[in-house]
Amino acid sequence: MQWFDYFGYFGSFLTSITFVPQVYKAWKSKSVGDLSTWTVLIVVLSASVWLVYGIAIASGPVMIANSVVLLMALLLLYFKFSFKS
Amino acid sequence: MQWFDYFGYFGSFLTSITFVPQVYKAWKSKSVGDLSTWTVLIVVLSASVWLVYGIAIASGPVMIANSVVLLMALLLLYFKFSFKS
Repeated sequence: MQWFDYFGYFGSFLTSITFVPQVYKAWKSKSVGDLSTWTVLIVVLSASVWLVYGIAIASGPVMIANSVVLLMALLLLYFKFSFKS
Repeated sequence: MQWFDYFGYFGSFLTSITFVPQVYKAWKSKSVGDLSTWTVLIVVLSASVWLVYGIAIASGPVMIANSVVLLMALLLLYFKFSFKS
């Protein structure tokens, strides 16, 4: 491992947890009016694309990070359509 | 190029534009109360970490995508502290 590999792993970890506080906040407040639906949709699509890429190159960190992000983004999308703004 | 490289480039493109609609929405509405400050802070940190990684491995797509994400996240952070919730 080179020094920058640790940045890659740390980046993967941070990417994984990015939307966890947002999901928690949205769930607690039941308020998602300020969230951009487009941003949530782009995250769903980008995490899906990265997940396919991660599987194709057999990269554990890419697969794990984007699986978590995809799950969180799908939850936010569900909240967007189920909570009143 | 293999087929999955296109997924990597498409993923980079999508990652780049992820927060553009969110910044636009926040700027238009001047309302960011539903955005998680933690999520924004994690995006700032993760984009910085990925940027260092991208520079270290000399990956254009990683550098470009995370530069845009970092800029957008810094704008959202500024909005979080300047707009009243």
